[in-house]
Amino acid sequence: MSHRDVRLDFNLAMETALGETGLRLSEIEALEAPMKEIHRGLMAMKEVGQLQFYQLPYHEEMAQEVIQSSQKLREKFDTLVVLGIGGSALGSKALISALQGPFWNELPRGNREGASKVIVCDHIDPDSLDQFLSGLDLKTTLFNVISKSGNTLETMSQMMIVADKLKTKLGAEWVRHFVVTTDPVKGVLRELVKEKKMASFAISPGVGGRFSVFSPVGLFPAAMAGVDLEDLLGGARRAEVRCRNEDVWLNPALMLALLHYLMFLKKRNLLVVMPYAESLKPLADWFCQLWAESIGKRFSLKGEAIQTGSTPVAALGPKDQHSQLQLYMEGPADKFILFLLFENFSKVIPIPHAPFNHEAFRHLSNHSLNEVLSSEALATAEALRSEGRPSAKLLIPHRKPYSIGQVLFLLEFVTAAAGGLFEVNPFDQPGVELGKKLAGGLLGKEGLESFRERILLQKPREQFVI
Amino acid sequence: MSHRDVRLDFNLAMETALGETGLRLSEIEALEAPMKEIHRGLMAMKEVGQLQFYQLPYHEEMAQEVIQSSQKLREKFDTLVVLGIGGSALGSKALISALQGPFWNELPRGNREGASKVIVCDHIDPDSLDQFLSGLDLKTTLFNVISKSGNTLETMSQMMIVADKLKTKLGAEWVRHFVVTTDPVKGVLRELVKEKKMASFAISPGVGGRFSVFSPVGLFPAAMAGVDLEDLLGGARRAEVRCRNEDVWLNPALMLALLHYLMFLKKRNLLVVMPYAESLKPLADWFCQLWAESIGKRFSLKGEAIQTGSTPVAALGPKDQHSQLQLYMEGPADKFILFLLFENFSKVIPIPHAPFNHEAFRHLSNHSLNEVLSSEALATAEALRSEGRPSAKLLIPHRKPYSIGQVLFLLEFVTAAAGGLFEVNPFDQPGVELGKKLAGGLLGKEGLESFRERILLQKPREQFVI
Repeated sequence: MSHRDVRLDFNLAMETALGETGLRLSEIEALEAPMKEIHRGLMAMKEVGQLQFYQLPYHEEMAQEVIQSSQKLREKFDTLVVLGIGGSALGSKALISALQGPFWNELPRGNREGASKVIVCDHIDPDSLDQFLSGLDLKTTLFNVISKSGNTLETMSQMMIVADKLKTKLGAEWVRHFVVTTDPVKGVLRELVKEKKMASFAISPGVGGRFSVFSPVGLFPAAMAGVDLEDLLGGARRAEVRCRNEDVWLNPALMLALLHYLMFLKKRNLLVVMPYAESLKPLADWFCQLWAESIGKRFSLKGEAIQTGSTPVAALGPKDQHSQLQLYMEGPADKFILFLLFENFSKVIPIPHAPFNHEAFRHLSNHSLNEVLSSEALATAEALRSEGRPSAKLLIPHRKPYSIGQVLFLLEFVTAAAGGLFEVNPFDQPGVELGKKLAGGLLGKEGLESFRERILLQKPREQFVI
Repeated sequence: MSHRDVRLDFNLAMETALGETGLRLSEIEALEAPMKEIHRGLMAMKEVGQLQFYQLPYHEEMAQEVIQSSQKLREKFDTLVVLGIGGSALGSKALISALQGPFWNELPRGNREGASKVIVCDHIDPDSLDQFLSGLDLKTTLFNVISKSGNTLETMSQMMIVADKLKTKLGAEWVRHFVVTTDPVKGVLRELVKEKKMASFAISPGVGGRFSVFSPVGLFPAAMAGVDLEDLLGGARRAEVRCRNEDVWLNPALMLALLHYLMFLKKRNLLVVMPYAESLKPLADWFCQLWAESIGKRFSLKGEAIQTGSTPVAALGPKDQHSQLQLYMEGPADKFILFLLFENFSKVIPIPHAPFNHEAFRHLSNHSLNEVLSSEALATAEALRSEGRPSAKLLIPHRKPYSIGQVLFLLEFVTAAAGGLFEVNPFDQPGVELGKKLAGGLLGKEGLESFRERILLQKPREQFVI
């Protein structure tokens, strides 16, 4: 029987399978009531419009606007480049790799069914940016500048460089090569959109960057790459319905939040997210941002200094069996591993007998590559279990938008609910402000002079440079 | 003044800059004598031929063989695909991205100075592999199969699939499309080389996969991509000379090993490796394998169960300022951050004034992108310092083979020396055997039937699947 719902299998986190390092049923039960309260709190926020990410999959008008724009633009532009970083980059990367494959951009146009290549450019080191830009055909390239605030240092630097290149090459046409995604009213980017009459999308100021995958931030690039948004959002809505349930035994997002928290209480400060599919690596990276920025906090909701948060790490099977598994098996008992597993891939690849048929590999020829992969995932989970190392599996029915929409929505809700358990605000990020001010100060931004001086005062001592 | 040597700046790990969370000079001094003993132990191993990675940069004959083969093969094959995983994949990825750039494979042949595209294929999920193979022109593609043992499950599965495709398309010519890198004498791959008269390179059985970057495992793909091996190995030899020194104050590899160990003793079980260059991400991944498999061990050298090892995490600046930095700044004090910084890039990109000149960004137009990037790196380090979070910087003079050769060799020696401090054998990986046997059992490999049964006995309980 093929399930249509994403499922959470956490047998290998429990005492029943794992022995004494596993969770006892009573530990979960003790958190059921607090979890219900947290759930009610989140639903109350939703009622007053303070949980906007939760409602994004129902914004039919926005989705239709994105679909219609992308259909027109795909005809004219063979390549879309996203200029954005962090929450403005990770969602579309996750969607496109998961659904169109990690090698989508290598396919000739004929194999892309009229959809565009989409490249997310979230780096600014000069050598890499120069090499990247030199490979583009500017005439057929559209740039999607994404910054909610409109003042992201890296993104604006990129935009200035690209706009200059476009103007030199194409003259007044350059403004037609930008689509800007930013605040509907405020900020420099919105001013620029009005002044230059650029195409644009709006991100509601109530949607945090890391929770924006179902806004035009994630959806427009995905649509340009040919992702079926209706099916994707259908999956997100299906997950939303399940997330309404306050019972941890019926709501996989609440249960996963609870597992993460219990593991952290047991000194497992590392949360390893390990898909067994090349296409899901960017999704794991997306979740790592979502979790780290949401849960890693100094102050509790009551204002106490708690310095909390587990550290997410993206791994990838089977390749990290050959890289990290030794440490996971034998190192300190500081990890909880979440596998992301497709139950079905789109292709089945048999392993052929010919052209060589050595006895050492004859057993492989009876199998498909799919079986090799699933055997490795099972074997890794069992090897970890036998060492008392806990894990859980997110089982994803198909490599299709309906499944991926569910996964992304569930993981957003896992994070929001975990905020309650860790007793932090999952929607702010106060810890990144200082770095921004220091960088602005060094670059001579007005009003930030004192931050510049602060760095210049730190003289390196030569004895500590070797 | 431009330094030619890679330098370690650890000011921001010390009490003098950091306050009470920093290291005291006396803590370093207390480990100087043990470090000298460890160093003598490593040099003694070298003398009796048990530290083979250390001598690889001096294998002139091997290097010449690789250079000459690659010169011929580059003319015939526009693309090299590496079929390998783990230690057989990460070194060449690191070299090629660091030196030829992350977008090397996007450049047209004319911009590649006669060198080949090189793609490392270290994944086996059926959808991704199918998409990847469909994008190749088999006639001009060479496959470098790399497996020291000759029985790596993923690599052999890939090879069987590719060989079958090649034979169907090209007939008897298929064997000319393989270059095999494996044990000089033993194993199925070596048998196959002899039987089919395939081109091949040898890896000495004494060189561990994760320490093989300066063997043909790393060097042949790098040479195909046009990396200057003479300059690279010159850098490695320069680092080797510095590594001979037993004084931690004159040997940056010993000092870095010591810093990692002291931080681990202070409950910092996470070692974040954070380059500020897109091109260095694969090098960070390479180091994560090197460190995790070498240091993550259950047993000490004396046979005591110690379950030790810090967990390496690759981050990337500036993008992870927008992803992980919140957690690094405000979360638990469980991290030590190692920045990898180029002191000079090859290009300087000025930020232009035109075509828009908003006051919010006017300060940027006085700067180059290089300055934006270096300001961000400085700002991040200072922000972390101000929170008492320790970091160090590996300063890399140029984006050139001579510098990268130094970095890779130094990090190998860091790892070998750290093994001594953590009191583990850095050259074995006993923890990955069980997973291999379980996977083999599931796939019906002879002699492993009991492992198959062991997994099938683990029945999932439905109450733990939601």
